[in-house]
Formats: sequence, structure tokens, C-alpha cells
Amino acid sequence: MSKVPSLDDYRVPYFSSKKSETFSLSALDAAARPFSTGTKEGDRNRLAEIGNKLDLLQERLHAQRHQRVLLVLQGMDTSGKDGTIRGVFHEVDPLGLRIVPFRAPTPIETARDFLWRVHLQVPGAGELAIFNRSHYEDVLVPRVLGQLNAAECERRYRQIRDFEALLAENGTSIIKCMLHISKDEQRSRIQARIDDPTKHWKFDVSDLEARKHWDAYQASYHDALVATSTEYAPWYVIPANSKSHRNLMVAELLLRLMESLKLEYPPAKAELKGLKIE
Amino acid sequence: MSKVPSLDDYRVPYFSSKKSETFSLSALDAAARPFSTGTKEGDRNRLAEIGNKLDLLQERLHAQRHQRVLLVLQGMDTSGKDGTIRGVFHEVDPLGLRIVPFRAPTPIETARDFLWRVHLQVPGAGELAIFNRSHYEDVLVPRVLGQLNAAECERRYRQIRDFEALLAENGTSIIKCMLHISKDEQRSRIQARIDDPTKHWKFDVSDLEARKHWDAYQASYHDALVATSTEYAPWYVIPANSKSHRNLMVAELLLRLMESLKLEYPPAKAELKGLKIE
Repeated sequence: MSKVPSLDDYRVPYFSSKKSETFSLSALDAAARPFSTGTKEGDRNRLAEIGNKLDLLQERLHAQRHQRVLLVLQGMDTSGKDGTIRGVFHEVDPLGLRIVPFRAPTPIETARDFLWRVHLQVPGAGELAIFNRSHYEDVLVPRVLGQLNAAECERRYRQIRDFEALLAENGTSIIKCMLHISKDEQRSRIQARIDDPTKHWKFDVSDLEARKHWDAYQASYHDALVATSTEYAPWYVIPANSKSHRNLMVAELLLRLMESLKLEYPPAKAELKGLKIE
Repeated sequence: MSKVPSLDDYRVPYFSSKKSETFSLSALDAAARPFSTGTKEGDRNRLAEIGNKLDLLQERLHAQRHQRVLLVLQGMDTSGKDGTIRGVFHEVDPLGLRIVPFRAPTPIETARDFLWRVHLQVPGAGELAIFNRSHYEDVLVPRVLGQLNAAECERRYRQIRDFEALLAENGTSIIKCMLHISKDEQRSRIQARIDDPTKHWKFDVSDLEARKHWDAYQASYHDALVATSTEYAPWYVIPANSKSHRNLMVAELLLRLMESLKLEYPPAKAELKGLKIE
């Protein structure tokens, strides 16, 4: 890594590239704050500034009704998926957002392939959709639970790459963020929820099962990231022990993506020129 | 009306009540600001205060995953449906909102009854859904266009009352707001869109057709409001020439509704008490 951090330093190398062999999730420090301004107030101000820019860009996206943007958020319990949505999109017009939470699949959903319910929710023209959890749950979890063998995992990774290629080739810009927290940080966040009875609704004793398999989940994330980070749908690892850093980094990534789309308002309509309304 | 204005003064009398015979939409002044604090800054501060309260209440709604809230927004072109959503929900966590825009129906939708696509979008447990236009378009517009006769209109009004009763009886609190602007105010808003080429995407020459039938639309609104304002799904007329008043009044109505739900966090879980995480 260079001395001045670049967002791309946190991009998971593309699938089957040479670099992907040396990628290590565990080597990335969850407590790092590479994109912080140095102070909490500075981070807040920069986040508000980005939020305003995102708001303007998103209005153009909406006005054009042509391109689509998809942000995928993944991470262990308490890694801050909800908080990221709340923090990053505070300034953005709620009209332009569609937030899609994926929970345990219903019988109707499990009766179909695992991408069926996801396909139903992809962003339409002019939309910015945020997946709060995603189709990645369907490789991350069953792999740890031993419900998929290695060949079945590889098949799903390929199916995901193909599915995301379909979306990208049809005008969807995709960015995927893995909110990376340490096991210690998770402990203190879970403990805080337990110690505050008004937070119990966010938590179930069964959630502790995943924590028991922390290392297996980290390995599962590592493999999924490496197998599905592509030029058209890259994964970024977000050091997320610091909430303000996490929000800022996700916002910076999304801003860069939105700016790269060269969004402009649709051309003026000739038939409206000089028209006076009675 | 009493001297101190009450939100209920702007409620359309319930269907088939005595008062409903004397209700007159045209008698309500679209330029009035009965709930304004008197200054724009005061309105902004009060709106932010309500926004914070709505945010806290909505978190409880979400935590409970039991009750549902539906806000229906209707109004003529440029009456400010989008602006209301943007203004009122600025402080509210986007995670807790679902905004549903209804546009011209697709062939799949018109092949079914007019409430089919609406039913698909009703709020789920713990959700606050906002309909940006709604099933009311399917009585308001065809009536003006002469596509429904009086008996067919009455049938749709009844079907709507029955449909909304179904929702209410199954735990959905419904509030419906008609954003009321004057014909003059609409002229200046349309003119402003025409004069700013970056706003042309919001506007189509065909939108002027509805303006030509302004009086017929006002009559259509009047009749629909009177026929479908019920105790379980009341209509409110929002004087909306002033944008800050419009936002404040919708926010006040929603706050009153949310406060009436007596939302509390779910009870603490006994099995989490004193638990220490490793």
C-alpha cells in the first residue's frame, strides 16, 4: 500500500487475478481509519458534504431514468449495516432510495433458486437500491453450517458472478461493501445491546451461534469475497470498528461511483421553450 | 371553525355523516397557513422537532413489528407530493420508510382489478409506507375523462372503503392527505418548471391537459373525498400553497397519529438478563 491511502487499496482483487492469491481478509485491520479526517467532527462535516453531493447526483439519476445503482452491504451481526444506511443516506432524498432488507427466506422463496427473490428486487431505471444483506447470505451461511460442499459453493459463486454480470451489462453499476469488525468489537456491541433492555428486540440468543463460529465465518467471507470480486461488481472491505470511519468510507466509495456515471439532467424539451401557462 | 385552529377542522367529514353534506373543498383557502408558527424559521424548527419525534416513534414501530402505518398523498400536478416526502421525512431513518410511487398502470396491472397492485404494496408489520399517488387516481382521473359513469364511480368508492376497512381491521393505521393548491399557484409552479430547462424532466406537455379540466378535477376530488373519508381512513385537506405550511401540517397529522398508537419497545428478554458475552 502507498502512504496516502487509496480506496482501491481496500478493493478485493478481482476474481482469478494474480493478486487475488495473496489477498487476506484477516490481515486487514478492522480498527483502522484510513479515510478519516482525523477528528469526529471533521468526519461528520465531510460526510454531510458527501451526502449533499450524493443527493444532487441521485436527483440526476432519477431524472434520467436510465442508469441504475446497487449498493450491497454485508457483514457480521452488529457490523453496522443499519447504521451505515442511516448515516450515509441522511442527506439523500428518500424518494430516490429503495432499501431492501433480506431476511430468512420464506417457503415461496426457498422453493425457487436462491437468486430468484434477489432478481425481483434489483434497482430499476433511475433507482439507487441498497441491499441490507443479500444473496451472499446464501453462500456465507450454508457453507459454515456444512450445508454446501466445496463444489456446490463454487457453483453458487459462479452463478453469482453470472447474475451480477447480467445486471451490469444491462446498465446497473454495482458496489459491494463488507463491513469488517473485529471479534472484540462485536463482543462489546452485543454486550451493549444486552445491557440495554430497549435494544433487546435487535437481538436473539440464537444470534450468538454465529459468533461461536467466528473463524469459520471469516474464512467463509474471505472465500466469497475472493470468488466474486469482479471489475463489474467489486468488493471493498470497510474497516468498521469506528462507526464514523465506516460511514465516511462507504460514502466516499459511493460518491466516486456516482461521479463516474457522468450524470446530467435530460436535455431540455424544445416544445416547452418559451411556453406561457394560462 | 374555532379561533384556535384544530387539525380536525381540516378533516373531511366522515362518509354519510350529516356534516358531509355541507363540506365544500372550494371553500377551503389553499393559501391559508393555519398551523404555521408565523415565521419560516419557526416552521422549519418545529418541523425538525417533529421529525426527530417521528424518528423515535418509527423506531418503536419497527421494533414491535406489529402495527403498520399508511400515509396516502394525493393532489394535482405540482401540489408538492414529492416535496412533502422530502421535507417531512428528512429526519426519519430511511430504514423505516417505504415510499411507493404509483404511475400509469402496466398491462399486467390493468388486467386485474384496480386495487390489486395497491394491495401488493400495503405496509407490513412495523412499516411506515407512503403512497405517492394511490388507488384514488383510479377514480379521480377516469371520472373526469368520462370513462366511469356515476354508478361505476360509486361502486369504486365503496370498493375503496371496503378495502381500507380490511387494512384497518388488520392493524393498519391510515391517514390520507389531499395537498390543496390554487389554480394560480399551479400556474406559477408549472411556469417555473418550464423556465428552468433542468426541470423539464418533471414535466410533459400532456400534463397541461389536466389543468384545462381544473374545475372538473376539483369536483372529482370533492366527491371522492366525501365518499371515502371514514373514521378508519380519514381524509385531511392540506392548504398547500405555502410549502413550509404544507410540510408542517402533514408532519403534525402524522405525529398525532403515531403518538396515538402508544408505541413502546418490546419487553426485555428474560433470557438476556445478566448475560455476559465472551
